[in-house]
Amino acid sequence: MLVTRIEILCMLTLLTDFGLTDIYVGVMKGIITQINPHINVIDLTHQIPPQNIAAARFCLMNAYTYFPSGTVHLGVVDPGVGSTRRAIAVEFATGFLVGPDNGIFSGVLSQTPALSAVELTNSDYWRVVRSSATFHGRDIFAPVAAHLASGVSLDDLGGVIDVASLVKLEIPNSTVMDTSIQGCIQYIDGFGNSITNIPGDEIVGKQWAVIAGGVEIPGGRTYSEQPQGSAIALIGSHGWIEIAVNGGSARSQLHLDYLDPVQVLF
Amino acid sequence: MLVTRIEILCMLTLLTDFGLTDIYVGVMKGIITQINPHINVIDLTHQIPPQNIAAARFCLMNAYTYFPSGTVHLGVVDPGVGSTRRAIAVEFATGFLVGPDNGIFSGVLSQTPALSAVELTNSDYWRVVRSSATFHGRDIFAPVAAHLASGVSLDDLGGVIDVASLVKLEIPNSTVMDTSIQGCIQYIDGFGNSITNIPGDEIVGKQWAVIAGGVEIPGGRTYSEQPQGSAIALIGSHGWIEIAVNGGSARSQLHLDYLDPVQVLF
Amino acid sequence: MLVTRIEILCMLTLLTDFGLTDIYVGVMKGIITQINPHINVIDLTHQIPPQNIAAARFCLMNAYTYFPSGTVHLGVVDPGVGSTRRAIAVEFATGFLVGPDNGIFSGVLSQTPALSAVELTNSDYWRVVRSSATFHGRDIFAPVAAHLASGVSLDDLGGVIDVASLVKLEIPNSTVMDTSIQGCIQYIDGFGNSITNIPGDEIVGKQWAVIAGGVEIPGGRTYSEQPQGSAIALIGSHGWIEIAVNGGSARSQLHLDYLDPVQVLF
Repeated sequence: MLVTRIEILCMLTLLTDFGLTDIYVGVMKGIITQINPHINVIDLTHQIPPQNIAAARFCLMNAYTYFPSGTVHLGVVDPGVGSTRRAIAVEFATGFLVGPDNGIFSGVLSQTPALSAVELTNSDYWRVVRSSATFHGRDIFAPVAAHLASGVSLDDLGGVIDVASLVKLEIPNSTVMDTSIQGCIQYIDGFGNSITNIPGDEIVGKQWAVIAGGVEIPGGRTYSEQPQGSAIALIGSHGWIEIAVNGGSARSQLHLDYLDPVQVLF
Repeated sequence: MLVTRIEILCMLTLLTDFGLTDIYVGVMKGIITQINPHINVIDLTHQIPPQNIAAARFCLMNAYTYFPSGTVHLGVVDPGVGSTRRAIAVEFATGFLVGPDNGIFSGVLSQTPALSAVELTNSDYWRVVRSSATFHGRDIFAPVAAHLASGVSLDDLGGVIDVASLVKLEIPNSTVMDTSIQGCIQYIDGFGNSITNIPGDEIVGKQWAVIAGGVEIPGGRTYSEQPQGSAIALIGSHGWIEIAVNGGSARSQLHLDYLDPVQVLF
Repeated sequence: MLVTRIEILCMLTLLTDFGLTDIYVGVMKGIITQINPHINVIDLTHQIPPQNIAAARFCLMNAYTYFPSGTVHLGVVDPGVGSTRRAIAVEFATGFLVGPDNGIFSGVLSQTPALSAVELTNSDYWRVVRSSATFHGRDIFAPVAAHLASGVSLDDLGGVIDVASLVKLEIPNSTVMDTSIQGCIQYIDGFGNSITNIPGDEIVGKQWAVIAGGVEIPGGRTYSEQPQGSAIALIGSHGWIEIAVNGGSARSQLHLDYLDPVQVLF
């Protein structure tokens, strides 16, 4: 195929819980390539803990701002695949979201409102499906995202739905008091760093410490302030208060888990 | 280097058992890029279980249809590297295969016949090799695949060989009887989902169950029909009967392994 | 955005210890894409053992020759992030290096000298940073590398520094004697293959064996010369003497670790 390359910039990110052991991700990229070989596809991660919608929500919320305007973000963490949950595409100020309507996009949309949304009912933009009911990522989400990244209008993809009807996955807000902040752990990364829901702005210019997992952890600026194996709290790269262990795992050393309470003391 | 981008579409997929811990895959991509920086390289997987030719065969067979016509599929699972096994390139209706002649391509070629094949004997298309005898992926297969994806003719790559002489890795066929089907497990994915060699078409419209690992497993349509931790049989995304555990691993829960017998009962 | 594709070839490799579980790598690629969507980004590996500068040094040293002239190699294994270690960019004969000045580039620069180097002090080429002090990969190294790959001059990125002042991470040289060579293990790959610092050239045309982990291991040419589970020494794909176990892990079977002594006997 001879192609001239005066083109529209097409950018698409992928986030799934499919892992990298199997061909599932490669097949989605093949489908995208069949529709438009000039889409620039970037992996956010494919190692979301299986069916962990909260982790997917956090990752998407902390990634979308780093991509060019117009980027399509495809997110497939979909424990309800094949049930009645809706398949959706959403437009926001600087891009698009494509995936199941189960709350994985509610972090992004808590920061930048949905401008419009459709349910993916127009099968013209799906892959022709045979008998399988289990791989919407390949048969619906990937082709729809590829068409959207290539310039197809959101309205063409299906029926308009009320943005207020989109499923929300809310985590508790942190509570700021005079001498303390109450929060919780909203994400644990692959190194065991445990990220709270307390914005880093709250402690700037103050002396502070954190109580989590039953112990007091000094507040600081960088991992290397503490000796190897010691815990430290700092403002993580996502902008939230984060609990880390220099050269180790805060998760295992402090027995931390999703939604565990965290207290900041001044 | 200033390049004008009126170009031929060049598409190349990679499948290996090299893993992602080391630079082996990155180096192959570097070699490809040195030959033609405009090849679109897509990873199928690099986590085939080490030297598991059957797993590679299954993955390639279930992936090639999702890529554009003309795509070159490079597969390197090669326990016999450095021995007398042949290095080959094969043309089929919608693309090319490059890798060792050990059966990894026999699944693809059971679905779409080989049109022609060559042994990779023309070292003009290899990387200049110093002393190593262990990395044909880098020194032979990657450069040959890059040249093939860039328009070099199959015949230029080496001597023509009889397609009937290509090594086949056959798995037993499933046997359809009046009230049952006998088959086996042909692949186990990274989540422990165990994929049989029984085509999903065989059970469409019927009431059915599966016996595997000594237990009866209900047939259904989606993972979420069963409670967390319960086994279900369904038509998987590849089109085969597949045994899964909702939120768990069928492999470990039912003690399943490659080639274990599976029986479908109506 | 409509773009015409008469362009400069822009090539950038990434090597980190960030892993693939989180969005850290995806976010770096997003940043790069915001600066120039036409950079060809290739992952070397993101699974360097955490903070293992020696492993990063080995991987970069054995990868850079496989990429086109002008490639920018971004390496972020950075235990001292946020401390006083310098952030640097270095030009060598066939490309550029960007990362922390902690020795990760000293393997490359032992083979091809640094032509010039700058400390990354010009924040015009950084991402605008808010409060975080922990992710130089995203906020400094990725944007600087993207600008460098897009044609920005090295001198524009910061103040020139003396190439002799760059931090070196030296491993012991191997010592060649009449009937033996003394060396050590300089890298262990994801399969447990243990790579020494003894160049393969030293044993070409000779009868040889290796002593490591207290046992004698026969020298050979390919893994498959030995039965499954048996150890073999050979010239690995990087060109160094390497200790492997056919179908197994030399690391665990022979209890080998970084810097363990290895002796070649003729």
